[in-house]
Amino acid sequence: MNAQIHEPLVIEPARRAPVGIVIGDANGIGPEVVAKSWASGRLHQVCRPILIGSAAAMERAVAALGLDLRVRAIAAPDMAQADPQVMDIIDSGALDPAAITPGRDTAASGRAVGTWLAQADQLARAGALGATVMAPVSAVALEMAGMLDRIVTAKPGETYLVLFSGALRITHLTDHMPLREVSAMIDKDLIALTLRKMDAALRQWGIAAPRIVVAGFNPHAKGTEDSEEIAPGVAAARREGIDVTGPVSPDSVFRHCLEGHYDMVLAMYHDQGHIAIKTACFSGNVALFLGPPYPQVTVAHGTAYDIVGRGVADHSMVLNAILAAGSLAAGNAFANLH
Amino acid sequence: MNAQIHEPLVIEPARRAPVGIVIGDANGIGPEVVAKSWASGRLHQVCRPILIGSAAAMERAVAALGLDLRVRAIAAPDMAQADPQVMDIIDSGALDPAAITPGRDTAASGRAVGTWLAQADQLARAGALGATVMAPVSAVALEMAGMLDRIVTAKPGETYLVLFSGALRITHLTDHMPLREVSAMIDKDLIALTLRKMDAALRQWGIAAPRIVVAGFNPHAKGTEDSEEIAPGVAAARREGIDVTGPVSPDSVFRHCLEGHYDMVLAMYHDQGHIAIKTACFSGNVALFLGPPYPQVTVAHGTAYDIVGRGVADHSMVLNAILAAGSLAAGNAFANLH
Repeated sequence: MNAQIHEPLVIEPARRAPVGIVIGDANGIGPEVVAKSWASGRLHQVCRPILIGSAAAMERAVAALGLDLRVRAIAAPDMAQADPQVMDIIDSGALDPAAITPGRDTAASGRAVGTWLAQADQLARAGALGATVMAPVSAVALEMAGMLDRIVTAKPGETYLVLFSGALRITHLTDHMPLREVSAMIDKDLIALTLRKMDAALRQWGIAAPRIVVAGFNPHAKGTEDSEEIAPGVAAARREGIDVTGPVSPDSVFRHCLEGHYDMVLAMYHDQGHIAIKTACFSGNVALFLGPPYPQVTVAHGTAYDIVGRGVADHSMVLNAILAAGSLAAGNAFANLH
Repeated sequence: MNAQIHEPLVIEPARRAPVGIVIGDANGIGPEVVAKSWASGRLHQVCRPILIGSAAAMERAVAALGLDLRVRAIAAPDMAQADPQVMDIIDSGALDPAAITPGRDTAASGRAVGTWLAQADQLARAGALGATVMAPVSAVALEMAGMLDRIVTAKPGETYLVLFSGALRITHLTDHMPLREVSAMIDKDLIALTLRKMDAALRQWGIAAPRIVVAGFNPHAKGTEDSEEIAPGVAAARREGIDVTGPVSPDSVFRHCLEGHYDMVLAMYHDQGHIAIKTACFSGNVALFLGPPYPQVTVAHGTAYDIVGRGVADHSMVLNAILAAGSLAAGNAFANLH
């Protein structure tokens, strides 16, 4: 999968936010795609990147790839230098370097990832990081460590999955649930609450006057969920001053957003948004969670154990994710992001 | 909406099928977009086009557009000439020329459209036409005439809506129904029956060894409908020798088809397929019904009463529809269609 990297995104030095990058599972391609992203020199034009994870894993990746980078352990984000040649890393010692077993799931590695994720979250909530990025982790390893709950997941009313690529940006009201159960979840109060959260997040990310559109649930947005729940939820949000339109026919609303008429679509269910973005936008999309008080960006691919250490892993998605995190944390919105 | 017209499609004279084109509601843009398509000279490279409708309406359109075309009434398809300058039309007299009222819905016009549609269907079923195309009609006018049932609609197990654009081709198991009711429709026997019909249609249209893929119903195709109905339905079709894969994650399957791995996707519900094609493929898609014994192609836009007679109506969708009908009727499959 080759994601396209478009126009260079540059943010002036004083506005660059500290972005914490959890290196992902040390046995997967995380360390190498993070190292390649760092070596691109692009990260430092946008943010102050700080790695969280195993220094030993990063050193292995640098050596395997033959990159001209140095790994330097630091104790806190404010000790990070702005040197593209030096990868600053906060290594809490959660992973014994001897326990790194490339290409294999282990409880030790899962436990370390769980620890790093919690550490990144604490630092961001304390204001020491402006955003976080999670490089590829292994759900299997996290489960072996009993720490699968450390990965944030979507929870309607609290945390929402957002996908974006170019002008197409989508918040999902619901995520992984049987489709036949979604109808019962669609509730006017939940719609209004979600619209408030979307509007606030978009403003925080740097969009002064967010324009939101809501997808309907049924074909052509003609059905009981559309008229009895979505429409009143949208009306309630409008009364509060939110610039929101809908429900709009699900088969048109994503194209309207892609053409620039809106800043973000609220989709009702997983595949409504995922089909739109994955069919139209190839693989260049970025995933983040709306709900945490800071942009929490994830990478949409896995640990690719079969190609670990061979230097062939494509780093464009993690690079996109870091650039997006830096841009949003700086209040630069989606400018120059593709 | 500007649809793109790609590589010229040419079919050798001996293989060109007679294609019946119902001119659409005489009060809408149908006659003018049909006339513009005819004037393009493209139709005759692909098929033997025969209009069905009001000769007077076509003459008005030709005059309004200042086209160098002649209208000639014929009694049956086999009387059609292959002259791009002469629009052969079967005019049964269903519409009094004095009753043409551009830009307005009337029962008289609806009744005429209903009559022409029935006539086109009879001619195709009798083998006198290889395919039909319906230019834009007005559901309001048809309803005023009590003939709304003359428009074919999707009916699971009998008639299916197919959309295609480029390599993305989608048959919909269900169409206009509340999304919460779709789950109960998904049945292994219906899946197997539909796959048989798709395989037969694709072969008839000229694809020697059709490769079909089935979209799952739930996120990542992981749910009870996927495992208990779709998978067994696919397995049953495979046992009959049909080359079919699935259920595949709904958010990946359309991209797989777009990239050429399959000839057609079976989507479970209206928006699954419509979101994919309308978000990814702009407006160049063609709609047809699978189920009738001949390709029955429709145009995805309306009568555009506001711009009737001004010569500004975009004819690319009706042109695409006619080229598609000709190609499928000749057993030329989707070659050169975009």
